[in-house]
Amino acid sequence: MSKILSTVLLLSTVLFSVPTGAVWPQPRNLQSGSSAVKLSNGFDISLTGIHNPPSDLVDAVSRTKTLLKNDKLERLVVGRGAADSALVSKAKSLSKLTVSLEKGAAANSITSEAQKPIGSREESYSLTVPSDGTPATLTANSTLGLLRGLTTFGQLWYESGGSTYALDVPIHIDDSPAFPYRGFMLDTARNFFPVSDIKRTLDAMSWVKINQFHWHVVDSQSFPLEVPGFTDIASKGAYSSSMVYTPNDVKDIVAYAGARGIDVMVEIDTPGHTSVISKAHPEHIACAESTPWSQFANEPPAGQLRLASQATTQFTADLLTAVSKMFPSTLFSTGGDEINVNCYTQDAETQQDLSASGQTFEQALDAFTQATHKVIEAQGKTPVVWEEMVLDHNVTLSNETIALVWISSANVKAVVDKGFRLIHAASDFFYLDCGGGGWVGANPNGNSWCDPFKTWQKSYSFDPFANLTAEESKLILGGQHLLWTEQSGPSNLDSIVWPRAASSAELYWSGAGGDVSSALPRLHDLSFRLQQRGVNSIHLQPLWCALRPGVCDLTA
Amino acid sequence: MSKILSTVLLLSTVLFSVPTGAVWPQPRNLQSGSSAVKLSNGFDISLTGIHNPPSDLVDAVSRTKTLLKNDKLERLVVGRGAADSALVSKAKSLSKLTVSLEKGAAANSITSEAQKPIGSREESYSLTVPSDGTPATLTANSTLGLLRGLTTFGQLWYESGGSTYALDVPIHIDDSPAFPYRGFMLDTARNFFPVSDIKRTLDAMSWVKINQFHWHVVDSQSFPLEVPGFTDIASKGAYSSSMVYTPNDVKDIVAYAGARGIDVMVEIDTPGHTSVISKAHPEHIACAESTPWSQFANEPPAGQLRLASQATTQFTADLLTAVSKMFPSTLFSTGGDEINVNCYTQDAETQQDLSASGQTFEQALDAFTQATHKVIEAQGKTPVVWEEMVLDHNVTLSNETIALVWISSANVKAVVDKGFRLIHAASDFFYLDCGGGGWVGANPNGNSWCDPFKTWQKSYSFDPFANLTAEESKLILGGQHLLWTEQSGPSNLDSIVWPRAASSAELYWSGAGGDVSSALPRLHDLSFRLQQRGVNSIHLQPLWCALRPGVCDLTA
Repeated sequence: MSKILSTVLLLSTVLFSVPTGAVWPQPRNLQSGSSAVKLSNGFDISLTGIHNPPSDLVDAVSRTKTLLKNDKLERLVVGRGAADSALVSKAKSLSKLTVSLEKGAAANSITSEAQKPIGSREESYSLTVPSDGTPATLTANSTLGLLRGLTTFGQLWYESGGSTYALDVPIHIDDSPAFPYRGFMLDTARNFFPVSDIKRTLDAMSWVKINQFHWHVVDSQSFPLEVPGFTDIASKGAYSSSMVYTPNDVKDIVAYAGARGIDVMVEIDTPGHTSVISKAHPEHIACAESTPWSQFANEPPAGQLRLASQATTQFTADLLTAVSKMFPSTLFSTGGDEINVNCYTQDAETQQDLSASGQTFEQALDAFTQATHKVIEAQGKTPVVWEEMVLDHNVTLSNETIALVWISSANVKAVVDKGFRLIHAASDFFYLDCGGGGWVGANPNGNSWCDPFKTWQKSYSFDPFANLTAEESKLILGGQHLLWTEQSGPSNLDSIVWPRAASSAELYWSGAGGDVSSALPRLHDLSFRLQQRGVNSIHLQPLWCALRPGVCDLTA
Repeated sequence: MSKILSTVLLLSTVLFSVPTGAVWPQPRNLQSGSSAVKLSNGFDISLTGIHNPPSDLVDAVSRTKTLLKNDKLERLVVGRGAADSALVSKAKSLSKLTVSLEKGAAANSITSEAQKPIGSREESYSLTVPSDGTPATLTANSTLGLLRGLTTFGQLWYESGGSTYALDVPIHIDDSPAFPYRGFMLDTARNFFPVSDIKRTLDAMSWVKINQFHWHVVDSQSFPLEVPGFTDIASKGAYSSSMVYTPNDVKDIVAYAGARGIDVMVEIDTPGHTSVISKAHPEHIACAESTPWSQFANEPPAGQLRLASQATTQFTADLLTAVSKMFPSTLFSTGGDEINVNCYTQDAETQQDLSASGQTFEQALDAFTQATHKVIEAQGKTPVVWEEMVLDHNVTLSNETIALVWISSANVKAVVDKGFRLIHAASDFFYLDCGGGGWVGANPNGNSWCDPFKTWQKSYSFDPFANLTAEESKLILGGQHLLWTEQSGPSNLDSIVWPRAASSAELYWSGAGGDVSSALPRLHDLSFRLQQRGVNSIHLQPLWCALRPGVCDLTA
């Protein structure tokens, strides 16, 4: 009766018929039928057999029910919902989704599960939606897995003629992520984003099962983070008193993320990208706002921590300790990118410090790095660094250190060869800001340094294991899209991020090798669902094409 | 006492000090001082000596007062509004702006002035804002000029500490546009935009004194225009019944535009770009949805009017007549771009029609064009065509015909050499969609055909008279930015258009030769003001740079 398709077969049918099973990211194991089922008026989701369910799980159930009611997404086929009316009129009514933990699984909060060390988060789940009106069931080994399953369940439903229905039932899904790290990075220093923008972004991230928010919170341009004990940096270095994340804002964001299965890795980039600290602590910053900026930094304003100074090293260690205490994550990024040597060469204080200690610049950088990483580790956290710290400098890094490759995906193998775990963040695939033209002034013909625009197809087609042996591949934790915000702010946050960031979310959840042709109809579906949910995700094609999978292909 | 600066001097001071006089587009003749003035609590704008002022002028005054109250824009300098507090505390209060027509000028509605033929619209005005608290005065030769002056007046004001103030007073402006045509084109066929999006765009257009909305309302993908007598085309060819502009919507949009000094030039692209008409009238469309689409059209779906058929020619003429009656503008675009000859070669009906009449394809196109232009002209309108009609085909065009150059700015001279008036719309400078990556499916490495992204600096630096003699230059009416919407919709309309479209608005109002360095601080100011007014204009630089003119220049 029901046609059971393997995931592979399902993908190939998507190509040649209407898109079905538009879950994003694609579950790793999906069996589906050819019937429909609709939600009964009294449809409910019940937590079964979970003693004292954690409040964030109860909230996740409640949010899922709200989405089922409010999404009102019409299917993307010619005729829209009307095309399904015959099937829907015969469909049985589903009155319940039963949610339970596997025997012996602990009913911890989603938040605590999401904040576990990378590699030890349990996100798998099993979901069954029958066609006969008997209850749907969702089980998992953790509340985090249940959240992922609820997210999938919430994407199965369409609206037409007053009915909320799913197709391709019966559905059985056994799902788990291919990679433990699936992230998104936002820079809130070049331009500021209110907490509400970050929360909306976290919602969208959770809907595509991204589990890591990499928060590049401060940089040379502004320091919007109010750090206990260091409040003068934000009070003098934020763009304004209203453009600050207070400790309560941070708690709010971390809790909001955690409840959505997302851990927050903060980054305090050091020793470069710190110019603005000079506003409160000029004694700690070399070449602050020196000109011409291009001789002292990759972008204005110039300014770097005086890494050869013991006082500055202590100041930095204390600052990192204080920031560490604001974030429960076991990951903490200390940055380390784009260190400008000329800044230090021209800085009399740094040169004095070096000659007093008899250290070379690289030796001083090593000591600075060891001192600052030590305090991170003392807080139970793993340091995360940009690739230069591994490839360009001679610093001692713990084997546990994780590297972000950003300059080029061609550098992945070199980092892995040094034995470090790695997060893909390469500009040639995952930089959302590329292709918007040069932003530096007095440069009428300037284009982005990382042209062209990185399309969703480009990132979706990335091979995380290119040129790596099986053994080396074990060091790949996953990857992320990144938004540097020289040309972004609240007004274009959604449109520059979505749905593109969803392409890496699927790459790292479902695994590499996905096909852009079969993905596109599901990505259209996701993009329209995001719009229904208040996220300004953009159109990827004319609606004419979105309604006709494959017909606007290059070869059609 | 007051320092009077010429425009040129003002521009150079902008470069090296805080930006002042951030009016956009830059007035052509501006004298300013160095004092401040603030609005009194009872500030009012009075229409003086205008008997029975037209209601759209009264409304424009009322909107200006609302903007003065609501903009609350802080100045973009380090310290923001606080930097001006000393000056503002000493400032006199301005209680009145007196608005009057020059002696003998007719008090016509703004709308009727805006809808006059291109070249005969009177948009000049004079504005004086004293520093001593005596009334400001605005005079013009037409209500349309008064609207332009009110727009300028509305851009002079900043907010800080509860005061609304202007700097650089006394100000005297004598202003008028360099070019009669300053446009913006929106495609509402690839993806649909609700009326509210169009109105918000018209507001933003009017704030930068754009006077022409080129509405590419229909295309091969959808036909969202309900045309009296031809309602079946929209009922079968719109994306949905809710994605249609009814005759009342059109009236609403035309009136909204007119009241804001904007004329609406509709485009019904013919004979290509008409595939969707086949849904209601398959008899009139050749190669409708033929595959592979790339052999029959530049983008899917293929389909063109059967131009060799007398019945189709009559149908098209009748359709154009009916659409003409919906729009009061004296401009009407019949398109004429990207005609695919293979579509007609493969179409048996067209081949029969050609052999029956003994015409070549070009002769048939000529007859079709003459017939359709004749009905446009019979409605008192001037036909506007894309450049191919002038350069690639052998059709008879009235000398009055206006050509839009889109393929390349390199084609401008060839069009002008044929004696036609011209609107700049070249993809290499003014296409807002370029640089977003390829949108055609199954094309993982596809980029835009018109890469790279066109920055505001690029369009701002365009020379409208390049390679033209003084005599030829007289044929240049102006130009516009254009948004084709394969990858756009309501979710990214503002962010893809603003503030970039403002760069051509200034180019064609203030004249060519503007300098990107002195323009940038004013453009930042405009972009933030647009945001305050509800338009999601994007950030062009980190706020750090926006607060420090010149400091983020390439050479700084």
